[in-house]
Amino acid sequence: MEKFKNKDLEELRALIEERDHEKLSTFIGLFQPIDFAEMVSELDDTETAGLCALLEEDELASLMEQAGDKERIRIAKTLNDERLLSAMEYMQKDDIVDMLGDFPIGRRKQVIRLMKNSDRQIITNLLQYPEDSAGGLMTTDYIALREDFTVYDGLVKIREISPKTEMIETIYVINSARQLIGCIDLRKLLTAKRDTVIGTIMEDQVISVLPETDQEEAAHLVSRYDLNAIPVVSSSKQILGIITVDDVIDVIVEEYDEDMLQMAGVNAEENLESTWKESLRMRLPWLIVNLATAFLASFTVSLFQDTISKVVALSAVMTIISGMGGNAGTQTMSILVRALSQQDISWKDALRPLGKELVVGILNGAACGVVTSVVVYFMYHNIFLSLIVIMAMIGNLIVSAFFGFLVPVVLKKLHADPAVASSIFVTTATDVLGFFIFLGLASLFLPYIAAA
Amino acid sequence: MEKFKNKDLEELRALIEERDHEKLSTFIGLFQPIDFAEMVSELDDTETAGLCALLEEDELASLMEQAGDKERIRIAKTLNDERLLSAMEYMQKDDIVDMLGDFPIGRRKQVIRLMKNSDRQIITNLLQYPEDSAGGLMTTDYIALREDFTVYDGLVKIREISPKTEMIETIYVINSARQLIGCIDLRKLLTAKRDTVIGTIMEDQVISVLPETDQEEAAHLVSRYDLNAIPVVSSSKQILGIITVDDVIDVIVEEYDEDMLQMAGVNAEENLESTWKESLRMRLPWLIVNLATAFLASFTVSLFQDTISKVVALSAVMTIISGMGGNAGTQTMSILVRALSQQDISWKDALRPLGKELVVGILNGAACGVVTSVVVYFMYHNIFLSLIVIMAMIGNLIVSAFFGFLVPVVLKKLHADPAVASSIFVTTATDVLGFFIFLGLASLFLPYIAAA
Repeated sequence: MEKFKNKDLEELRALIEERDHEKLSTFIGLFQPIDFAEMVSELDDTETAGLCALLEEDELASLMEQAGDKERIRIAKTLNDERLLSAMEYMQKDDIVDMLGDFPIGRRKQVIRLMKNSDRQIITNLLQYPEDSAGGLMTTDYIALREDFTVYDGLVKIREISPKTEMIETIYVINSARQLIGCIDLRKLLTAKRDTVIGTIMEDQVISVLPETDQEEAAHLVSRYDLNAIPVVSSSKQILGIITVDDVIDVIVEEYDEDMLQMAGVNAEENLESTWKESLRMRLPWLIVNLATAFLASFTVSLFQDTISKVVALSAVMTIISGMGGNAGTQTMSILVRALSQQDISWKDALRPLGKELVVGILNGAACGVVTSVVVYFMYHNIFLSLIVIMAMIGNLIVSAFFGFLVPVVLKKLHADPAVASSIFVTTATDVLGFFIFLGLASLFLPYIAAA
Repeated sequence: MEKFKNKDLEELRALIEERDHEKLSTFIGLFQPIDFAEMVSELDDTETAGLCALLEEDELASLMEQAGDKERIRIAKTLNDERLLSAMEYMQKDDIVDMLGDFPIGRRKQVIRLMKNSDRQIITNLLQYPEDSAGGLMTTDYIALREDFTVYDGLVKIREISPKTEMIETIYVINSARQLIGCIDLRKLLTAKRDTVIGTIMEDQVISVLPETDQEEAAHLVSRYDLNAIPVVSSSKQILGIITVDDVIDVIVEEYDEDMLQMAGVNAEENLESTWKESLRMRLPWLIVNLATAFLASFTVSLFQDTISKVVALSAVMTIISGMGGNAGTQTMSILVRALSQQDISWKDALRPLGKELVVGILNGAACGVVTSVVVYFMYHNIFLSLIVIMAMIGNLIVSAFFGFLVPVVLKKLHADPAVASSIFVTTATDVLGFFIFLGLASLFLPYIAAA
């Protein structure tokens, strides 16, 4: 999808040249903020500096909120500290923290030093949480009302602070110690009698997370319970911030992209725009690790060279057995990786379906084995070879079920990410044991297959 | 994460036995609706029927909204039409449509016939859209205000209808022909002067989709523009409904799960709970398709049996070359599949990074080739075999870059899903050509490697 056209970009360049703020503002109004930010990313540094000098502070803030991580730093470089600070007045706290986290340390410290006292404290607090924790993701711009407020007081307060908040649909309720004790839907506030005390009509069950909770877990809760946001509370239940649903979507997309690419041995940071150097650096290590497992498989084959030299057809047939083991192993492994990414699982629950997987492995092995043996028979007219094919296929698909199942479970239990490392172990198992079973059987029955 | 404990389930069973509605309601209040729904899914049909008889209609509606597809049908079976219809009064229209869509056709028709006229029309309209289109996902419970309303009129209307709507944060603005012409943030309404005309303060740019738009596209827009909901409009711009962000999250999760599993040859409907019969039915077809490609690879090897019989070490080394081609091809392919899932891409844009991929293929091939050749030299003390290994590895990693790149692009251009079919073609190419290049080179230089 093209969100803007080349002629839009040309017009933007002309408007920057012209230095007419009025016209520029009208032009910006024609685009969604993120589309405009993408257009700006096409400008060079001089053009960007020219643009930023022309923008109002709120326009600048919106541009920086929408820009990607790298792009934001580029824009910030064109601004002096004073102008950056005034733009930050219009930005959400979580976006400011994201931005400062990416700054060179010197500038970060300087900007924080220049902040208003109250802001400095909030930002310094937020900066201490890891980027992928609930604390790192939360914003402090939320609405919390005291339980002893009346609905009327509440609505007045909401009217006052809502323009600065990210989410208005759910209002949080706190006690005098700022502990989160409930929440209330704005709809309910709007329709309730004005003198009702909020504490009497709130929901007293609120799902919340701790600041150190993993962002994936927070996202999972928002998605499971269809929330608009999830509050982050300290261990003593004081509300620290909220994570809004738009950030949750970003987390979900990011985590899935990671899982999907990592299963294929690709770094989640790589994309079509990566340079060849970046791609090489990110892909080669995985290939080298795989190479080690390929040697293992190759070594297994070399153990049976005597047998192969007597029945050279084995070299062609063995690739079918090991390949099918790999395919079946990948199927099992993917289902496990998906299941494990969504929840922690007890050993008992995890191992329960193993029996089923083994049954499926045997049956898939029998089906594929029979088909393969028929084809092999027509190629080599050797009934014993065909029988060995069936046995080896069943054997290797049992191996693939076993390892495709257990490897992700064990990795998860060892607190490793099953998406990253599973395939290397599963492939090694299905290759090495696939060759071993087939060539081993062939060696055992060599007199029959060599004679036939 | 266990959301409820066995003793909760036992208590629920006891409460159903007791037939005390009061106590049951208190008990239900202790759980989040979806957690309660999961608990109910553990009950047998008789217990479920007993429970449903005790529930208030709104409790029943909430249970059915939260239950999974199959579970919802099971609950509906325990209800007579009259009771089902009264529960539906409390349900969102999109959930009703989802449910009716899964009903046996006879019951669906009967329930629709018994509906109020106005509801019947809405539901019948919604039912006509495919399940995975924007129309199939939208709800008709949204707030739209006329542009000539004052803020005061608007707030009165919102207070009146908001309890029935799914989203209140963004209010849509329509003209007298019910065409969507703008939207306004509830915060802005709350803080505006009471006699302001809404049309004068609304945003006149609204991102919307057509009912036939693919749900993935709608989800992408909500995520890109950080929306709370996206309106669905007819071709003549009349507002038909909205898609809310919680449904968008479900779509994103569903589509990712599909892509991830389909790349591994697994049906997205399979999970750990599938029976062995279901698993077999869903996995065997993919294995059989792969078997066909395995035969192709095996056939390629069999063409070179004379060569292998002279240098049997080739049979061990060839598995390394083909295996590494498969790994590198999967890397390239995964990056393409991810990039293509997020956007349409022009031939020109799609083909631009191909050159880079080929460079990365050559360099990865050279690196892996050198490592392999050294190991092979120490195993077989044959310098010519080592040289062939380097050439074949580079050749096969070029093949893997080429096919890993082009297969997903071509499938996308043919409007096939790259996630589903890419791996089969890429594997075939890297296996068949990997064996062919290596064994072909070995045949060419046979006198050297056989003599050494």
